[in-house]
Amino acid sequence: MIMKTIEGGICAVRGIRANGIKQGKNGLAIIVADARRLATSGVFTRNKVIAAPLIITQESLARGDLKAVIVNSGCANAFTGHKGILDARWMARILSNKLDCSPDEIGVASTGVIGRYLDRTWIQDHLDEVFDNLSSTKEASRASTRAIMTTDTTLKEVAIELDNGVRIGGIAKGSGMIEPNMGTMLAFLYTDAVLSKETLDICLKKAVDKSLNMVVVDGDTSTNDMVILSATGYQECEEEVFQKGLDSVCINLAKMIARDGEGATRLIEARVRGACTAGDARLAAKAIVRSPLVKTAIFGKDPNWGRVVAAAGYSGAEIDQDKISLLFSGNKQQTVLVDSGRIIEGELEALKSIMESDEIIIEVDIGLGDNEATAWGCDLTYDYVKINAMYTT
Amino acid sequence: MIMKTIEGGICAVRGIRANGIKQGKNGLAIIVADARRLATSGVFTRNKVIAAPLIITQESLARGDLKAVIVNSGCANAFTGHKGILDARWMARILSNKLDCSPDEIGVASTGVIGRYLDRTWIQDHLDEVFDNLSSTKEASRASTRAIMTTDTTLKEVAIELDNGVRIGGIAKGSGMIEPNMGTMLAFLYTDAVLSKETLDICLKKAVDKSLNMVVVDGDTSTNDMVILSATGYQECEEEVFQKGLDSVCINLAKMIARDGEGATRLIEARVRGACTAGDARLAAKAIVRSPLVKTAIFGKDPNWGRVVAAAGYSGAEIDQDKISLLFSGNKQQTVLVDSGRIIEGELEALKSIMESDEIIIEVDIGLGDNEATAWGCDLTYDYVKINAMYTT
Repeated sequence: MIMKTIEGGICAVRGIRANGIKQGKNGLAIIVADARRLATSGVFTRNKVIAAPLIITQESLARGDLKAVIVNSGCANAFTGHKGILDARWMARILSNKLDCSPDEIGVASTGVIGRYLDRTWIQDHLDEVFDNLSSTKEASRASTRAIMTTDTTLKEVAIELDNGVRIGGIAKGSGMIEPNMGTMLAFLYTDAVLSKETLDICLKKAVDKSLNMVVVDGDTSTNDMVILSATGYQECEEEVFQKGLDSVCINLAKMIARDGEGATRLIEARVRGACTAGDARLAAKAIVRSPLVKTAIFGKDPNWGRVVAAAGYSGAEIDQDKISLLFSGNKQQTVLVDSGRIIEGELEALKSIMESDEIIIEVDIGLGDNEATAWGCDLTYDYVKINAMYTT
Repeated sequence: MIMKTIEGGICAVRGIRANGIKQGKNGLAIIVADARRLATSGVFTRNKVIAAPLIITQESLARGDLKAVIVNSGCANAFTGHKGILDARWMARILSNKLDCSPDEIGVASTGVIGRYLDRTWIQDHLDEVFDNLSSTKEASRASTRAIMTTDTTLKEVAIELDNGVRIGGIAKGSGMIEPNMGTMLAFLYTDAVLSKETLDICLKKAVDKSLNMVVVDGDTSTNDMVILSATGYQECEEEVFQKGLDSVCINLAKMIARDGEGATRLIEARVRGACTAGDARLAAKAIVRSPLVKTAIFGKDPNWGRVVAAAGYSGAEIDQDKISLLFSGNKQQTVLVDSGRIIEGELEALKSIMESDEIIIEVDIGLGDNEATAWGCDLTYDYVKINAMYTT
């Protein structure tokens, strides 16, 4: 199957109009799906402190599909009680008034500081400017992506065209408070394929489980994680083909988020195979990219591979230390450090050279079964500390 | 019940002789218990990659009690396969030869880099020097504590005398790779009370569960965590009285470890109450002190309390966000930030002042039940990154 990467982000998808504005810490984005046959799915954080916009968007998705989403950055509208719910409903209402539809057809998302009330005035003051300039250009996709950024330093957007002509595009934000559980950071995905809500639900869950749910920046699960996938229904597409395309888009966004983790200088990819269960493979892969000791060693280019084995050991996955194999690769080099529990001595120099790479691949073969998983993360640096020591001030 | 803090560390306990030497990254400590009636208990890491010295010490403890322990720092002798087991047995043997006892009566512990073989030569070369100068002075307790340090910057030793005259003393090391699970870092505890092995097992488990198992520096569970408790049997003591004393010693050591967490500038104490279950209270308390976002905010004195609520939310504990209350204290001040889910506005200035304290107490009332737990941690600083980016090099 051929997938072509194309320009345009979400606006590469037929029927999508977008726009956004960012001013200091505040941002506002609107995305509208002019569909022939609309279907929408979503996944949400499992944090029990769930933000107000997620509560109302989950309710709306249970009733039907989403014609548009409105997103603000700067305030998470999380842990804001009843007032927060009213504020989120107000966001849905101001956009539904513009679109002449029901507020139930509007998705609402927020990202920013937790425990602060929404600044309705700023949003109201910029609504017309954003709405009146909605368009389907690549600049419009970028403007909406930029509007939802917080500590992100890169724009995260992807678009692909499958060989049957179907397109899938996505944008995302996320840099800190990243260890998604079911949902993830914010991501808005669109396709022009004709697909039912039920099919979207299945495909989105599968894609997110192997992509956005496998990214760890710091191990903190956000109160505001949300992924929305809408199909505008212009082109037929087999489910299996669509799934592959969606997986690719989500994995691309996941890697972009890991690479742009707060303060990060390099991407870490942990590939675990030979696990007893799929759950074990996921546990071990995520423990490796979550470990502050693995992350700081990679920042310092320190060939301290024992920390990888320790992380796999405490991950909860079934492990027999005499069966583990460990490989590091990067800079087009590869080195086997452990073979079935046996340390291969004399490989530290090769490992030091691999550690210079800006993309480090850690492969662990648990040697007990047939299951595998891949997780992505980044190094832990002085800048991570700096960014997060002064986030609200 | 009165507990008096006394000098002397483990050597304050009748029957204990100790000594140690530290040279660069290498260290060797020996502790001998000359008991009237010996009993020994131990708890060990739950990391599935368990270090060789723990494997042989667990076997020895299953057979009987430990007359002495030999500990090296600089090499963890972890993930070292069959050769590692032979090296650990060799450590037991060289000390048992000196003491003219069975190697089964010797506990062995190691701490340092994972995945490297033991340097037998260095240990052999320093054995006589350490053994020949064993003594019961406070200097001897300190020498043994210093010998087992790695990235620790403070000596961790405590001794108390109960009102019945019974003494309990302990030393510990631990600064990074700290999120104990069952066992913890290294700690060696002694008492002159007359207690059975069965009683020690019960008391040690209880004490560790509320102290050393509630400390998080970075969330990495070590391959080498081990706590050994020996009674030398010179004085009668009720179990309940002993338990209180042991709890106090272990909590003191736990706080010392948290305060000296790698790169730490301040101690964080998270007190959770009102949880549905004891397990929930522990999950929430540990999630708060583990969260890199809470830890960096405290380093930066940033009053970003929403991160505490988010951490409780993803901890796995049962949470209703409308029931949570949140208090911060420090610098002899206290501020209520959230009362049963309602944000108390205008408290940010008071919180900023509390954030200047070098000991921050975070109290969360979940508001759903009657269970409580306390956990200790430290802030996440530039120096944590620096120390761990260059550990082996």
